[in-house]
Amino acid sequence: MTIFSKIAAGEIPSYRVAEDENYFAFLDINPVAPGHTLVIPKKEESYLFNLSEADYAGLWAFARRVARALEQAVPCLRIGVAVIGLEVPHCHIHLVPLNKEGDMNFGHKMTLPAEQMQEIAQAIAQKFE
Amino acid sequence: MTIFSKIAAGEIPSYRVAEDENYFAFLDINPVAPGHTLVIPKKEESYLFNLSEADYAGLWAFARRVARALEQAVPCLRIGVAVIGLEVPHCHIHLVPLNKEGDMNFGHKMTLPAEQMQEIAQAIAQKFE
Repeated sequence: MTIFSKIAAGEIPSYRVAEDENYFAFLDINPVAPGHTLVIPKKEESYLFNLSEADYAGLWAFARRVARALEQAVPCLRIGVAVIGLEVPHCHIHLVPLNKEGDMNFGHKMTLPAEQMQEIAQAIAQKFE
Repeated sequence: MTIFSKIAAGEIPSYRVAEDENYFAFLDINPVAPGHTLVIPKKEESYLFNLSEADYAGLWAFARRVARALEQAVPCLRIGVAVIGLEVPHCHIHLVPLNKEGDMNFGHKMTLPAEQMQEIAQAIAQKFE
């Protein structure tokens, strides 16, 4: 089981943002900007482009719903997207609230207080449709 | 007309990689890694998440076909994905061949000789299905 599967299953705690039968979204524990969210398929697959056609389309559709909630919950110009995925063998979409081009900088990670993370996660979850 | 619409229409030259009725792919003129490709909808829309459901799904499906060609044409571990889009008001997916986590670094752009760009574009185009 990957660490992300354990998170989706609730075996490892996370700041949960949204979930349905097939997909799960939670806050990145080391965000590059407040509200930085990871969206994953519950099915384990390391590489985004190896997902089945249905799972790939479903993941992007779910990510859009999360992005819509995120942009309402966290002040930003728009939501940026990244898929890198050489570190954890479970594909994940980064959704990052952007206010300027340089905000998508994976060399600039931060740690926020647990209370703030919880507040952000709840604010996004409340906007999720 | 955005600069990307002019590129898709052939009014501004580009290293063309792939095209269909609705989508267009071409090499980023200042790649962060050789083979760095941009995928755009021909329809002008500034923000990815404002695309219609069909255009959004179609863009990601087309991007996967380009990524499949790219990973065959350019040696890499996998293809990374980014959508930032605060600079050009026409949404575009970055596809970047990755060999290590740090390869997706938009602070490290390069310029390659025209002959090499042309060779890369042709190699990707030949693998595109």
